[in-house]
Amino acid sequence: MPLGEFELIDRFFRRPARRSPLGIGDDCALLAPAPGMQLAVSCDMLVEGRHFLSTVRPERLGHKALAVNLSDLAACGAKPLAYTLALSMPRVDEAFLAGFAAGLHALADAHEIELVGGDTTAGPLNLCITVFGEVPAGAALLRDGARPGDDLWVSHPAGEGVGGGIGDARLALEVFRGTVSLPGEDFEAVRRAMEQPQPRVALGMALRGVASAAIDVSDGLLGDLRHLLRRSGAAVARRESGTAGPGDCTLGVTLDTAALPRSVVLAARPEALQLTCLLTGGDDYELLFTAPPAARGLVERAAASATVGVRRIGRIEAAPGVHLLDAHGRPLAFEGQAFDHFRT
Amino acid sequence: MPLGEFELIDRFFRRPARRSPLGIGDDCALLAPAPGMQLAVSCDMLVEGRHFLSTVRPERLGHKALAVNLSDLAACGAKPLAYTLALSMPRVDEAFLAGFAAGLHALADAHEIELVGGDTTAGPLNLCITVFGEVPAGAALLRDGARPGDDLWVSHPAGEGVGGGIGDARLALEVFRGTVSLPGEDFEAVRRAMEQPQPRVALGMALRGVASAAIDVSDGLLGDLRHLLRRSGAAVARRESGTAGPGDCTLGVTLDTAALPRSVVLAARPEALQLTCLLTGGDDYELLFTAPPAARGLVERAAASATVGVRRIGRIEAAPGVHLLDAHGRPLAFEGQAFDHFRT
Repeated sequence: MPLGEFELIDRFFRRPARRSPLGIGDDCALLAPAPGMQLAVSCDMLVEGRHFLSTVRPERLGHKALAVNLSDLAACGAKPLAYTLALSMPRVDEAFLAGFAAGLHALADAHEIELVGGDTTAGPLNLCITVFGEVPAGAALLRDGARPGDDLWVSHPAGEGVGGGIGDARLALEVFRGTVSLPGEDFEAVRRAMEQPQPRVALGMALRGVASAAIDVSDGLLGDLRHLLRRSGAAVARRESGTAGPGDCTLGVTLDTAALPRSVVLAARPEALQLTCLLTGGDDYELLFTAPPAARGLVERAAASATVGVRRIGRIEAAPGVHLLDAHGRPLAFEGQAFDHFRT
Repeated sequence: MPLGEFELIDRFFRRPARRSPLGIGDDCALLAPAPGMQLAVSCDMLVEGRHFLSTVRPERLGHKALAVNLSDLAACGAKPLAYTLALSMPRVDEAFLAGFAAGLHALADAHEIELVGGDTTAGPLNLCITVFGEVPAGAALLRDGARPGDDLWVSHPAGEGVGGGIGDARLALEVFRGTVSLPGEDFEAVRRAMEQPQPRVALGMALRGVASAAIDVSDGLLGDLRHLLRRSGAAVARRESGTAGPGDCTLGVTLDTAALPRSVVLAARPEALQLTCLLTGGDDYELLFTAPPAARGLVERAAASATVGVRRIGRIEAAPGVHLLDAHGRPLAFEGQAFDHFRT
């Protein structure tokens, strides 16, 4: 007889409760944020064929499902506390579940958080994780705080090794799509970037009070940058006139494409492919953030304390528009869209 | 051109923020529970064909997706605060979305809660809602507080009209399955019970400090009752011996099946069908709870304040076992399983 729903939870997901006043298994989980803390909440749903390929190792899928959610907490500067998992699967596949749970628990342990509840059901494979973090009231990094003249920064793996960096996940996807071929070890490196992103939680927390705005790069750098510019532009307009609502105004940016941090694998590809991967790739889970030029030293120190690289890649402008510059400081034409789940 | 992901959110789901410090649209939602409050969190995933039929009206689906989650808050005695929605859909169907959002927002407004975040993606239809509520620290209704001698109670719609009551949702499902046929208006009544359950939020809050344990009836009365008996038995054993862990012990119950509140539609069906629907039906979203006999007056008053009916249906026993009694107080044999998503 196959495992039932409750045995499945007991076998693969129940672990001793450490932080939550309850373990899993009651109608609700109970969380008690510390006094003066706000609770940051984010929720991401992963669907086979959209967010992961059927070929992904279950351990890596478990890692990624939690990592993309932790990345949202990182973009708010929140300290992770707990998460819930809702899981729909066609059937109970014990090998899959054991691997998935191992990858999930390993990343959860690395961030000292625990599973506090969730749901399991039969159905097409679908993973929905909701993460909870805490941040001192008023200290969350938001998308709307960028101001003209701010520097634009992006994080990258410390040391910029063979694997990792903006654009690697997209490069791996192009290999799977058959449009690019790579030597085996190069493919493994970029595939790891796609399948095991590292959420920049420590950096996000270190940037509290330093960054003026932040977002994580999940749908492609240009697309996510536009969200930040629009939200910040609307905030500037609201402050100045008290009339304009969100979406009516936007800030602009000058972006130095040569400064975009990329892995040696990506750097060896043709320039057009590099730009596509860097600017519209998505699935990067690096932090894209702004800070006043006076805070450059603080940004560098925050990155060092989080053992993450950061690179200054441009400047926020008062006038709308994304101005791309090439390695010689000349305007660069680029046509590309951010990822949209219903248009791609 | 079809609607994109962000237009979709703007069009159907963005509304003015009232309670959350942010609207939707940043990396995380921020929640600030009041001092001394714990945050109750629950998460349910609904899959087409499992939790709802493709024939359901989108308004009712929007209602139900939120209602089943609010029911978990009710079972903890928590006051609803906010929710997130993750939605996977094969394509952007504007008529579906408009109806779904209308049903969702109507129930959210009735409980004065708002959507604070979420995710949308292309994929097989899947709805995952996470709800947040608050409850004074230590006051949550849990599953593990029942004690031998406690009364067992179940809620039901006030007045016990034509529609509503334990078992109606299952009766409607049997009509869809073709095993039962009902006159049109009777079918509409039980179908409404299946598609538009009313979460017993006010009752749950009123039972704080009155009920010793509570659970909502989602997988069938007997199955959910067994969860409550096991958790409570383990708690009793832990207190008495300090040795037994969860699952090692369970309490028992004597259940007066004649007392189970049922609609006039269900009461007109054959006895065996009534028992199946009442005891193993599921999808009822009534509260099943225990309280000491001395608290009977308080339970009745809590129910009256919540404008909900409650019925005393049995007694918790120290010895394990579910003893069903018929209308004459004689033992009743019944073979039936609770709903299990991977075994049904």
